[in-house]
Amino acid sequence: MSAATTAHELAALLGPGGVLSPAPREYLTEASGPAVGRADAVVLPETAEQVAAVVRWCYERDVSMVPRGGGTGYAGGTHADGGVVIALDRMVRVRQFDPLLWRIHVEAGLRTGDLRRIVRESGLFFPPDPGAAEQSQIGGNLATNAGGPHAFKYGVTGRWVTGAEAVIAPGEVVQIGGASRKDVAGYDLKSLLIGSEGSLGIITAAWLRLIPAPEAAHPVVAFYPTAQAGCEAIETVFGSGIEAAALEYLDEGAFAIARGAYPGTSPERGFMVIAEADGTEHEAARVRDELVGVLEEGALAVEAPDAASLWRWREGVSLAVMARRGAKLAEDVAVPLDRLAEAVQLTVEIGERHGLEAVSWGHAGDGNLHSNFLFEPDGDGRARADAAARELLTAVVALGGTISGEHGIGTLKRPYLADQLSPPLLGAMHAVKRALDPKGLFNPGKAI
Amino acid sequence: MSAATTAHELAALLGPGGVLSPAPREYLTEASGPAVGRADAVVLPETAEQVAAVVRWCYERDVSMVPRGGGTGYAGGTHADGGVVIALDRMVRVRQFDPLLWRIHVEAGLRTGDLRRIVRESGLFFPPDPGAAEQSQIGGNLATNAGGPHAFKYGVTGRWVTGAEAVIAPGEVVQIGGASRKDVAGYDLKSLLIGSEGSLGIITAAWLRLIPAPEAAHPVVAFYPTAQAGCEAIETVFGSGIEAAALEYLDEGAFAIARGAYPGTSPERGFMVIAEADGTEHEAARVRDELVGVLEEGALAVEAPDAASLWRWREGVSLAVMARRGAKLAEDVAVPLDRLAEAVQLTVEIGERHGLEAVSWGHAGDGNLHSNFLFEPDGDGRARADAAARELLTAVVALGGTISGEHGIGTLKRPYLADQLSPPLLGAMHAVKRALDPKGLFNPGKAI
Repeated sequence: MSAATTAHELAALLGPGGVLSPAPREYLTEASGPAVGRADAVVLPETAEQVAAVVRWCYERDVSMVPRGGGTGYAGGTHADGGVVIALDRMVRVRQFDPLLWRIHVEAGLRTGDLRRIVRESGLFFPPDPGAAEQSQIGGNLATNAGGPHAFKYGVTGRWVTGAEAVIAPGEVVQIGGASRKDVAGYDLKSLLIGSEGSLGIITAAWLRLIPAPEAAHPVVAFYPTAQAGCEAIETVFGSGIEAAALEYLDEGAFAIARGAYPGTSPERGFMVIAEADGTEHEAARVRDELVGVLEEGALAVEAPDAASLWRWREGVSLAVMARRGAKLAEDVAVPLDRLAEAVQLTVEIGERHGLEAVSWGHAGDGNLHSNFLFEPDGDGRARADAAARELLTAVVALGGTISGEHGIGTLKRPYLADQLSPPLLGAMHAVKRALDPKGLFNPGKAI
Repeated sequence: MSAATTAHELAALLGPGGVLSPAPREYLTEASGPAVGRADAVVLPETAEQVAAVVRWCYERDVSMVPRGGGTGYAGGTHADGGVVIALDRMVRVRQFDPLLWRIHVEAGLRTGDLRRIVRESGLFFPPDPGAAEQSQIGGNLATNAGGPHAFKYGVTGRWVTGAEAVIAPGEVVQIGGASRKDVAGYDLKSLLIGSEGSLGIITAAWLRLIPAPEAAHPVVAFYPTAQAGCEAIETVFGSGIEAAALEYLDEGAFAIARGAYPGTSPERGFMVIAEADGTEHEAARVRDELVGVLEEGALAVEAPDAASLWRWREGVSLAVMARRGAKLAEDVAVPLDRLAEAVQLTVEIGERHGLEAVSWGHAGDGNLHSNFLFEPDGDGRARADAAARELLTAVVALGGTISGEHGIGTLKRPYLADQLSPPLLGAMHAVKRALDPKGLFNPGKAI
């Protein structure tokens, strides 16, 4: 079918304002890199029923569908190779907000930052805090089961979801769970959809749990002479039984790059650990003092910067690293906590073997590293970075870790999935995919 | 195949001590009721490989399998109707315990109470606390995604699982996740297996997250003149932004039955609310005082009994209610919190319509009711209780709730699943079942 026919027929379903054709470039790229996909049309449904109508139309005609949130992914999860892009941008309504019952029901296109602000105005807190909150959408957060610094204490996005509305093949709106905080009726298809990158269906709305916002958050920053010393400090926080709200690190190379804008005072160089205490004012201050006590051991310096400035700076680390040489290949891996120091060191060593500067930072408490290989955009840097990434992923699996802690598999990590997952396990995942998407039209080539 | 041949061939796989035939009665009943199942043999594997060998044997011969933990379920999830019962009783090892890293790797047959004690000795806490901890096994807790009073603050069992080892069709051991605290590689089959009642595979081991044990736990008990007043008090706890660790209730009828053994002092009658504060000694005392302040409004009485005695008594409520007339039909439903008072009143009214005493108690903060219809074992009580339960389940679904909050579907609730789940959603669940268990041999007739 021609792109023009596709656009024409979809416009009949959604109205002319609901279809963009030719597909605008901003719907064909994502944060992961410069690759530009292709699509016959971009649709902008306003309701779950419109999503279902589009899915039915596609399923009848064997047209593939790429659902899309804010496009802030790093794994190629929204890369389109033909077919229709289904962007949730216009599904931004808060369908119900019950602040006194700690729950909210929102559509998938609502931006994460907006959600956090809306509930915060009522004294409540939606804990997941993946980066790019002003661009990312809650539907995308569910589709990738997004994490973030405070996942250490509060868990990833899926933990806060009591219900999901989704469109499944061949074009049916289903509600899985809802406002009830507990539900064990039937299989947990909600959790199966969460993190499946739109490859089993399209999430159109979510019921979310909330909690009272912590009164205070007090970060502590400490610097260490080596990654080994820094990781030992992190383990000591665990061993001391202190419940930090976040437990982050930047290795020496990453901190050196981002140091210029750092809002505190710091030594010339060092492995950085960020620990945050939250709770009531009294509780947060108590835990902060405990953290200072533990982190001081072996540290070059310890300080307690302003929380808002620190996290704003932390959010910019990735861009600062990108700017260093113009390009980078970012891996997102996770290992059991006791292998963190090895993984940090491996990143640097593997970079060296491939002639690349390599740095890492991430969610130390969750053993989740963002390992970055830096290169100039021209030349053979990309090829060397690819080889380095491949080596890193193999090493991480050997450490008992995972090739993706929170960014997902998308298209970019799909070639490596078989390194981690055994053939029977991967076979079971493919069987589930065939069961729920027999024509293979939902975000083909992603997730598994 | 004759039972004797089955037993003989399985003994060749597991050794003579690994097979019981004829199947002893204690492996054919469960807490849900007097029904006795039938099976050609009970196997007691000692390793995941032995489980896989049994599954392969069964899968090749079209023999159905019923996996079994402690048998404390209330939904008929372990009821066998022929085939082989696979009991995890001998898989009780702690494979690895890293107290300083807050994690433990245990086999499925370990009893929940033993797990909690083992970690507690190192100052750690495994929060899920379903009833019958001395009988139930951690594998069964995963298979049912068990809850309990402290799920209100800490979530149900699944939230604490970072990895699962399972045997899937046609007899393969797979490891899904592991010691890493985060992992988004591929579909979340771990969450799919959790709560699937052994109908998609058999969980043989789990990697669990732990947290530092709270220093103190201080319960507060309040009594109200009506269910309405009690439920308003519960909503006020939410509205005041107080994070209780548990938030329970017993309706007037349930408390009247259990009052004799109550370890505190109480009014003659009343709707009982239990709220617990935990944390450091200071924090728990602060939250307890806040709870007292909020719960006093409209209460007949408020007191702060000893935690251990209170929870021991609370655990015995179900047995006390059972003893009242010799038999009861226990439903486990959950509703959105703002419908709790309605659901409590409905239980009593529906009981009256069917000439049955009806009481409820449960996890108020999660909107999770255990509604019980009492009857004498002889006579037509069972039939009337069945009719009452049917009416209750329909009403709960109309309130936006679920027919099972934490006990599962098993065989007993399966007839009602279609009242709650739409045909396309139920269809998707059946497609997943066929995909992962094409011969339908894993715990047939359960879960969906």
